[in-house]
Formats: sequence, structure tokens, C-alpha cells
Amino acid sequence: MISKLINSIQSKNAPIVVGLDPQLKFIPQYILDKWYKECGHSLDAVAEAFFEFNKGIIDAIYELAPAVKPQIAMYEQYGIPGLIAYKKTVDYAHEKGLVVIGDIKRGDIGSTSESYAIGHIGSVDIEGNVIKPFDVDIVTVNPYLGSDGVNPFVDVCNKEDKGIFVLVKTSNPSSGEFQDKLSEGRPLYEIVAEKVVEWGNATMDGSYSNVGAVVGATYPEMGAILRKLMPKTYILVPGYGAQGGSGKDLKAYFNEDGLGAIVNSSRGIIAAYKNEKYSSYGEAGFADASRAATIDMIEDIRNNAF
Amino acid sequence: MISKLINSIQSKNAPIVVGLDPQLKFIPQYILDKWYKECGHSLDAVAEAFFEFNKGIIDAIYELAPAVKPQIAMYEQYGIPGLIAYKKTVDYAHEKGLVVIGDIKRGDIGSTSESYAIGHIGSVDIEGNVIKPFDVDIVTVNPYLGSDGVNPFVDVCNKEDKGIFVLVKTSNPSSGEFQDKLSEGRPLYEIVAEKVVEWGNATMDGSYSNVGAVVGATYPEMGAILRKLMPKTYILVPGYGAQGGSGKDLKAYFNEDGLGAIVNSSRGIIAAYKNEKYSSYGEAGFADASRAATIDMIEDIRNNAF
Repeated sequence: MISKLINSIQSKNAPIVVGLDPQLKFIPQYILDKWYKECGHSLDAVAEAFFEFNKGIIDAIYELAPAVKPQIAMYEQYGIPGLIAYKKTVDYAHEKGLVVIGDIKRGDIGSTSESYAIGHIGSVDIEGNVIKPFDVDIVTVNPYLGSDGVNPFVDVCNKEDKGIFVLVKTSNPSSGEFQDKLSEGRPLYEIVAEKVVEWGNATMDGSYSNVGAVVGATYPEMGAILRKLMPKTYILVPGYGAQGGSGKDLKAYFNEDGLGAIVNSSRGIIAAYKNEKYSSYGEAGFADASRAATIDMIEDIRNNAF
Repeated sequence: MISKLINSIQSKNAPIVVGLDPQLKFIPQYILDKWYKECGHSLDAVAEAFFEFNKGIIDAIYELAPAVKPQIAMYEQYGIPGLIAYKKTVDYAHEKGLVVIGDIKRGDIGSTSESYAIGHIGSVDIEGNVIKPFDVDIVTVNPYLGSDGVNPFVDVCNKEDKGIFVLVKTSNPSSGEFQDKLSEGRPLYEIVAEKVVEWGNATMDGSYSNVGAVVGATYPEMGAILRKLMPKTYILVPGYGAQGGSGKDLKAYFNEDGLGAIVNSSRGIIAAYKNEKYSSYGEAGFADASRAATIDMIEDIRNNAF
């Protein structure tokens, strides 16, 4: 799978992913009103509004960006209807040729982790009928439970040519509480990074592994160290834009081949029309605003990150 | 919420929780065949079979056990229909007066963690229409992202009188890879435990906090240390039965007041009819077998864990 993602990054010359993390406050009022009128003030109305919003964004950016990353929490918040909107978003993004990274941050043990892996990137076999329940290409995985939690995902990566990004160093202010704890002089995130390399060696796909890592844009010094520790690991970099990271902070995350990292922006793109810089697009131009923000982000990375 | 759980534990004199973690191999063939006939070899068929199975178990154990813990991964594996079965299971358990612990092990940052918290234990407000999407009482939470990830859950606990159990030391063999790493001479799980106490102080409910901890039955020496470190923290103890823990290993997890821990068994109860000891019940008696296994588990804990 990682080679498919790399091909798409190269053909679009854009190592970016658009985070589809809808929140009510990002959705233009005319879309909400339409669905409130249709379905009342219900979970279904919000779910339909989310999907219409996402469709607009996807249509505006699919020629520019290689991938989208829906954050499942935003959909799960609205229960079953929300999760149906998540699944419809995944399918629509696939129709448009995008690689879909499901930001699910799941992690459990043994058969439980296997169930998550099968449900999201694998397939169930019901008496010979093989079904891919969520059918995304890559998911994010939480490593706190160790190899028992990650290996079932690695197995599915090999079986179905899929990928994972394992949380190593997250972009949030309190990520250091546990991730930075020193053990024999080394922070925990480095110890996790070594395991990422080990897990990744079991599922190589060309020059890179199907096991990637999440390293926040907000910690570029750590990004530089982690880049060297995990030379064949693709790094998913959240925290660009709204969380404070910028193009020049991203140099450290790329390898000399110009590959090795893919940078996420969520609200910086999907809520661009609410940003002063793109406010002339107005509510009705939300999708065009997101396209303009995508172009600017790609430009920033091309000019500053290499 | 923790006081509600404690009341139920005391009135039933049973500090246990039944893990509703259905797998195809646990479901009696006659139930599967019925739904395959009705819905084909589909996700819907499996989801209906899971719910019928769970209903049988709940009916058999609700007078004995204070709580159930559906593992959402087992449902999520079957996509949207699976998640509908999860929600129906939650609602049916509530009808029977059970406390429902959603084993979701979610954890993210800021607004994303808030979305998980709201979706599972809180409520969304859609233009004044307040809806509780999953409406469980307590969820499990992964702490790897630090306070940013956990505090949104604590806020919802306070707002809606709900609870969480934070993963501290899990029951699986590889849990030590990261959780046992020594930092300044202390294992990471102790550092997490201290944070659990800190988070818990913000949401006390009687003698115990709405922030509990997960500590596996398979590590009783660590359980003893963690018990002392977190005196007002309820401990959810997985790993009893099928994973190797037994009643005498559980002493360490309880406080002197006889409270402080609730022990989970999943397949040891729900798949009891497949165990030689209860095989005389046969497939059709799966629910009665689970009732017998529940009685035996409670007996084992009453006789050995105090």
C-alpha cells in the first residue's frame, strides 16, 4: 500500500493529506438548514450535512492531493448515522481515486486488535462471502499495548496490501507526559520508534514499509531524530497549520530522496472559508476556499520543506 | 457513576463484569443458521446473531452481575450493522438494569477526544435537541496522548455523571514493552497511575473517583503496588479465566473495605458451553451455561479474593 501512496504523492507532487474532520461549526449554515428541514434536528441531519460538506471538499481537492484522512471520532460523535457518513465519505474518496487514511487510533490485544484490523483494513469471511466492512487503505494505531496490539494489524497489512501509521510522538502539548519519559537515557518515543522499525521490517513494500509512524509537526527536533531512527518508515505529520507547524518546520521529516513524509492539514483546509485569508469565497464558496488553501499548503511545502 | 456501580456490586455481592465479546465461533450454529436464512451471509446476519446471543446471555446473568462490558471491536469488525448490534446490546443491558462499560479504548487529543467522550458517554446538542448517541455509562480510555486526551473525558464524566477506566497495565504478554519501561527507577505504568489519581481527583463520587484504571489480572504483584498508589481508584481487572488469572490472584486488587475492584470475564462466561465443565448444557443451553459460569466465578472471587 505504501508504494501506492508514494506513487500518488509523486504524480501529484504533493506530500499532503487533507483531514476530513467535520465539526458543526465548520459546516455552512445553508447546508445544515437544508438537512434540518429534511430530517429535523437529528443525528441523521448532521450526518447528511457532514457528507455533503465532505463531498464538496473532495470534489475540490482530489486532483491536487493524493489522500484524505477522515478522523472517525468526528463521525462517531453522532452515533450510527455519523458512522454511516464516515463510510460514505471513505467510499466517495475512493471513487475519486484518493488513498484513504482512517484516523481511528485503535489499539487493543490479540483477537480484539485483529477485529479492529479486519473491520477497518481487512475483510470478514461469512461462510465464503468475503466483505470489507469499512475498507480504508491505511489506519492509525495506538501502540500502548505493545506488539500484541500491533502485530494483528501487520498481518492484515501483509494479507490485504494495506498500511498503518503507529503513534510515536503526537502533536499535542501534553504528548510528553508519557511519550518523553526517559528510560536508560532515551525517551519512550524512541523506544516505540525502534519497535515501529521492527514491525515494519515484516511488511516492506518497495523502499518503504507498510508500517508508518505519526510524528507531530510541532516537534521538529524530535522529528529529525526519529527520521534517522526510522529510515524506511513513512511519517504522517499532523499539526501543520492550525496547530502551529509550518513548511520550514517540515524539512526534518523528509528523507534525502524527497520522500518519507506526508503532512496533514484538517481545519486549515476544510474550514479555510472561515479564515480571513480566504473569507472572500464566502460560505457558498467553502469548497473553492479549501482548494485555494490546499494549493497554498502544497506551495509552502514545495518551497520550504525540501 | 462509580457510586452507582458500587451500589450494584454491593447489592448483588458480586464484583464482576461480564464481557460481551461475541465472535462467530462462540455463537451456536442454530442461531447463525436462522439469521443466514433470513439475511444471507451478510454483515446484517452476523449482527442479528450477535444481538440474539447477547440477549440470551444478558437474560441469564442480569440478576447476578452488576455490569456488562461489550468490547466494541468485536462489533466494529462487522461494520455499520455490527455497530448497530453494539448499540442494541447497550440498550438491552440498560433495560435490564445493568451498568454498561463500553470497552472502546479510545484516546486522541483536544476536540477529537471530546468527540469520542460526547459520542460514547455524553450528549450532542443539535439546535437544542439533546441526544445521547451511544449512551454507555463508563468507557475505557487509552492514555498514550497524555492529559490532553483524557481531560475531555473527565469533563464529560463531571457533566453527565459518567465514568472512565484508563489503561494502566494491560493483561497481555507484551504489555511490558512500553508500560514497564523504567524512568528514574519507576515503571511507566506507575507514572500513568499517578496521573490517573490526578485526573480522578477532579471527579470524585463518594469514596471513589469516576476515573478508574485497567490493571490486568495476570500481573498481581504490580496490581498490589498499583492498588496502594491509587487508593480511591476503582480497578477494572481483565484477564480472569481464559487469560490465566484466578480468584486467589485477585486479593491484591481489592481495598480493605472489600471494594476497589471489578473483575471481568468474557469468553469464560459467554462461551462457557464450549468448555468441558459446562458442556452438558449443549448449544441450546448456552445461556444457562453462562449463568452457571457466572455463579462459579462469583463464588471463586468471594472465597478467594478477600
